Amino acid sequence: RRGEMAKSTQLIDNEVFRAYATYTAIVLLKMMLMSLITAYFRITRKAFVNPEDTASFGKGESAKKYLRTDADVERVRRGHLNDLENIVPFVGIGLLYALSGPELSTALLHFRIFTGARILHTFAYLIPLPQPGRGLSWAVGYSVTFSMAYKVLKTAWLL
Amino acid sequence: RRGEMAKSTQLIDNEVFRAYATYTAIVLLKMMLMSLITAYFRITRKAFVNPEDTASFGKGESAKKYLRTDADVERVRRGHLNDLENIVPFVGIGLLYALSGPELSTALLHFRIFTGARILHTFAYLIPLPQPGRGLSWAVGYSVTFSMAYKVLKTAWLL
Amino acid sequence: RRGEMAKSTQLIDNEVFRAYATYTAIVLLKMMLMSLITAYFRITRKAFVNPEDTASFGKGESAKKYLRTDADVERVRRGHLNDLENIVPFVGIGLLYALSGPELSTALLHFRIFTGARILHTFAYLIPLPQPGRGLSWAVGYSVTFSMAYKVLKTAWLL
Repeated sequence: RRGEMAKSTQLIDNEVFRAYATYTAIVLLKMMLMSLITAYFRITRKAFVNPEDTASFGKGESAKKYLRTDADVERVRRGHLNDLENIVPFVGIGLLYALSGPELSTALLHFRIFTGARILHTFAYLIPLPQPGRGLSWAVGYSVTFSMAYKVLKTAWLL
Repeated sequence: RRGEMAKSTQLIDNEVFRAYATYTAIVLLKMMLMSLITAYFRITRKAFVNPEDTASFGKGESAKKYLRTDADVERVRRGHLNDLENIVPFVGIGLLYALSGPELSTALLHFRIFTGARILHTFAYLIPLPQPGRGLSWAVGYSVTFSMAYKVLKTAWLL
Repeated sequence: RRGEMAKSTQLIDNEVFRAYATYTAIVLLKMMLMSLITAYFRITRKAFVNPEDTASFGKGESAKKYLRTDADVERVRRGHLNDLENIVPFVGIGLLYALSGPELSTALLHFRIFTGARILHTFAYLIPLPQPGRGLSWAVGYSVTFSMAYKVLKTAWLL
């Protein structure tokens, strides 16, 4: 059993895979950060959605007024959903791409541009920057994932 | 280092894994397409959610009227969220399934039915087709993922 | 080709990977269950969002009144979205963690606590339990994913 274990964990010795692991962990942690920012705005803006979350503000009408939407909270939530919509394809397609045998330098280029674009996208959404700041950073990340998908389909194609 | 790299990238030589990679790339690209369809409807229906997105329509009240929800935009967004809810489990469980040593023909059957069902689901949602068109296509994809999860748990079970 | 296939599928013989596969399948199935609970509440509360879903209740105004939001349906949907936001990072980072060569006992501790926390979170959301029940179960799952990300970055770091 020992030999097999060693063999399996060697994937992490592959440099492209290590790069994939590093950037995937970074973008997923960035996505997780959106939960904390949402919580921060919910608490500072006193804008909640679940009645049980306002219980500490008292009972009845005094607590009920905190069950409301807030523009800043909704903005962070849209950024979070946009992350899910874009980071999920990156993680899934990126794994297949990392296993499809790309050059390390090409792979790093893809991972770095995607990660940079998504971090820019978050700033563009939360500050917010005037358009096309957010639109362009979204499009760059989208294109990187598309480019990786092309390589995956070219290498692995079996329908 | 070279030998290990070669070893790791051999996963892509496994036919079941190649099939998994092909269909996963296809369904993730299909999911990504929902972003473009949402953008298309937002622009043609002039229905935006972020004030900075309407800045090109002028200032003040003239731009504010485009901050509104539109039935078609919301429909695409629901389809997109449904994709996230169903394609994420497929990608995660499908990877484990592909590594659990299924027959190629059985694996292809699972991947093809899921992919077909999700493409049908998108058409059923966007046209929209009368029910139970959308419900059935959803249920077929759901059942395929369930069937793969059963095989994964039977093969890998270690609690 | 046979030899390579055997080699690739050996990942599933790695005990840490088997544990990862088991807990990932469980939490993804739990997430998929949220779709069924949403459907159950939509049907029993007669609260739908798509006009084509209410066609069986008759035409015109008699069906239109079922196009409405319901507090219970919205609660399940929030729980489902929270699952997506938290289980996606677990599945992605957990895979890299499982391949980074952790001790089996340490890995099992991570996977078990995360899975237990997310099951508790669902109960806390749906019953609902008074806070900080839901908040704590969320924070525990979040911390586990964070701990795995730390191990991944420490092992794989290649920027």
